[in-house]
Amino acid sequence: MDRFNPALSNLQSATAARALIEKGLLTSCELVEACLARIDELEPTIGAWAHLDRDIALQQARAADEFRKRGLPIGALHGLPIGIKDIIDTADYPTERGTVLHQGRRPPRDATLVSLLKEAGAIILGKTVSTEMAVYAPGKTRNPHNPEHTPGGSSSGSAAAVAAAMVALSVGTQTNGSIIRPAAYCGVYGYKPSFARISRHGVLKQSPPLDTIGVFARDLADLALIADVLMRFDAQDEAMTPIAPPCLARIMAEEVPVDPHFAFIRTPVWEQVDQQTKDALRELIEATNETQPKTVDIVDMPPFFADLHEDHRRVMEADLARSFAAEYQQGQAQLSDVLREMIERGQQVSDADYSQALARMQDYNEFLGEVFEDYDAILTPATPGPAPAGIDATGSPVMNTIWTFCGTPAINLPILQSPNGLPMGVQMVGERNDDARLFRSARWLLGVLQNDNPDAGEH
Amino acid sequence: MDRFNPALSNLQSATAARALIEKGLLTSCELVEACLARIDELEPTIGAWAHLDRDIALQQARAADEFRKRGLPIGALHGLPIGIKDIIDTADYPTERGTVLHQGRRPPRDATLVSLLKEAGAIILGKTVSTEMAVYAPGKTRNPHNPEHTPGGSSSGSAAAVAAAMVALSVGTQTNGSIIRPAAYCGVYGYKPSFARISRHGVLKQSPPLDTIGVFARDLADLALIADVLMRFDAQDEAMTPIAPPCLARIMAEEVPVDPHFAFIRTPVWEQVDQQTKDALRELIEATNETQPKTVDIVDMPPFFADLHEDHRRVMEADLARSFAAEYQQGQAQLSDVLREMIERGQQVSDADYSQALARMQDYNEFLGEVFEDYDAILTPATPGPAPAGIDATGSPVMNTIWTFCGTPAINLPILQSPNGLPMGVQMVGERNDDARLFRSARWLLGVLQNDNPDAGEH
Repeated sequence: MDRFNPALSNLQSATAARALIEKGLLTSCELVEACLARIDELEPTIGAWAHLDRDIALQQARAADEFRKRGLPIGALHGLPIGIKDIIDTADYPTERGTVLHQGRRPPRDATLVSLLKEAGAIILGKTVSTEMAVYAPGKTRNPHNPEHTPGGSSSGSAAAVAAAMVALSVGTQTNGSIIRPAAYCGVYGYKPSFARISRHGVLKQSPPLDTIGVFARDLADLALIADVLMRFDAQDEAMTPIAPPCLARIMAEEVPVDPHFAFIRTPVWEQVDQQTKDALRELIEATNETQPKTVDIVDMPPFFADLHEDHRRVMEADLARSFAAEYQQGQAQLSDVLREMIERGQQVSDADYSQALARMQDYNEFLGEVFEDYDAILTPATPGPAPAGIDATGSPVMNTIWTFCGTPAINLPILQSPNGLPMGVQMVGERNDDARLFRSARWLLGVLQNDNPDAGEH
Repeated sequence: MDRFNPALSNLQSATAARALIEKGLLTSCELVEACLARIDELEPTIGAWAHLDRDIALQQARAADEFRKRGLPIGALHGLPIGIKDIIDTADYPTERGTVLHQGRRPPRDATLVSLLKEAGAIILGKTVSTEMAVYAPGKTRNPHNPEHTPGGSSSGSAAAVAAAMVALSVGTQTNGSIIRPAAYCGVYGYKPSFARISRHGVLKQSPPLDTIGVFARDLADLALIADVLMRFDAQDEAMTPIAPPCLARIMAEEVPVDPHFAFIRTPVWEQVDQQTKDALRELIEATNETQPKTVDIVDMPPFFADLHEDHRRVMEADLARSFAAEYQQGQAQLSDVLREMIERGQQVSDADYSQALARMQDYNEFLGEVFEDYDAILTPATPGPAPAGIDATGSPVMNTIWTFCGTPAINLPILQSPNGLPMGVQMVGERNDDARLFRSARWLLGVLQNDNPDAGEH
């Protein structure tokens, strides 16, 4: 990546690139060219991109470079190329949602989140591969760590593009495990914010009480950088309320007022977690408690959490049946079996069962509220194991369902590795709407694990 | 204002109040109570408010105080009460637009700008009086400096409420001279940003190429504080494009790279300016050039600017005829003569004349572009004179028309006084979309006028 500008060889992160651009040591055109060169090299193997046009990308980069020369303040993402999951509307690129049913679809305008990125000066580099309608049936994307393995889904291309260093930042969505799972499989940081903190206006609707926008990056500070831009009220997303932005980057950099404590929670699906993941997590906890005694406790969930996965399934499938009614009626033959079956199960969910399942969200959150009285964050595996072999399925979201259903913020920390060299992730979960504390706790833990240097959060 | 909290006696500005709230030395409830007490005292004389409900205001203040206690980051306007011109939609209050034709109108949702204020933590204290449909026919408001004089219009209540210290901040609109004129008459700071930098979604439409949102405050830093919150891209305002926020407060506080130069422009309507205003401006320029030689030059406009006022009139009246067609057809008898006549003149404007007038915007801006190559800002009177006696008219916007038509940012600096004690303003105009430089230049000039202390911009 250093063939255009010596500064490029130092590019570890979006934060670093943004600083170079501000100082005039790097142009957006150089950065975009470097990303395009990397994509030229790796895309045939990885298949992260659904739509990407060199001219559209460079035109934005030239405009960014010209804007900077005028001496006006530049945005937080000025000149930085970003990958956007192909279920998120863009005026510059098609948005085909991973299905032939929406082939050639050209939205008239950008989703709100795309506008926020543009306002911050970002370059919409291209659209990343989504599974079919952001559910299970995979696209063409392969895992950058081993192309015979799945990258996870549904935000497959967004996770793989960041992992392959094609871009430093990308945007995805999660309705079950579609941010945290591919982040863990691809070995990158992934962040699913608290529910309803990033606008879904202009994004494919699956399940309104569950759909959540999230982001990918190769370090924690970069996650905060892009999320701070996106976490803005938008009245066009009816779930949102106007509350103050969380200021992730600022709070994350602050010293912790007291050393954080973490609850390690195995969850009711612990038997699905493989042995290497269990071992890796146990070692991590031991290492943490050795450096900082009593940092992590094991906490058990009450038995009624055993129903949560079924509650989530009912809500999600009933909503899929409603949201995808047109596709089901008009294009059933072109839907994957897995999606058609989910829609058909969803059609059978009664209103009463749906409402009851939704109502239990509050009960589950009540217990979590108690946990967060004693602990700053929860630690739990990001996935049941590393990315499975094969690209005909995207792996299990079972470790992510609870946190999606409860609307709590979650980060994948890509700090573990399986014996076969594939990445594995620790999922850190925070209290709902206290996302900044989650970032600060994550930064602190990374520092502890890097040998008592709590202020060196990035690696 | 000091009966509730000792901190209140020091309240000079929104910026100061915000700092006290952050430190826990002042609550939003205390601040709102103080504003309400001030309103109880002065409203019978001033008549600044169209709608104000003690309970609605205090409910928001209580919520703000509770939010702060949770320890999450608070917004830039956390807990600060704000007055909103009654042509801007609010979900909490009626929006009656200064006409019986919209009596009882209750918008279902907030205008985008109101959402942005709420997101920043502001308290929507109430709705301020607008002239009829934000044109000329006055409401009940009187000038706080002398109730026998007009406060100016159309943002009469917003300017008067700030001048009377009922609130520190308010929002208005300008399609001709409706921010700068009432700011000058009422002796407060007023800011009309560059065209299309604050969303008009949810605001009464008069003339799409001219309508501009603006703000009032009692010092320059406060103007920047609220404008920084409001200047965000909104795709629902079709004139806007996603560019980086101007960072007014940050840039304004920076040292000037070189001492600014100002062009004093008399404009083609100079013969309408009264002698006391001409004298006051001349003294101001002499005082400035005495302290900082060659700071202000006199610059003349080319003769073709003589057509601008007529071009503006055509565009505005033709648009009023379109925008207010329903009111004209269904409620003609309840329109003021002045508005009915404008609409009827507007109906006569041909498409060709309209387009030609609009096209000339570019010619006018070309000359201004040359001015801004040599000068940081333009100085010119804010109004032809101090607020006229009588409250049956709102004074002349003739000194504001050029800057509205050209979309350039303008600030009223309330630093002059007429011999009869009424305030008069200097209008400082900046280059389009370089609003931050305008603020920095204004801060610098205020410092110079306050005796060689360029860093003491506020007073």
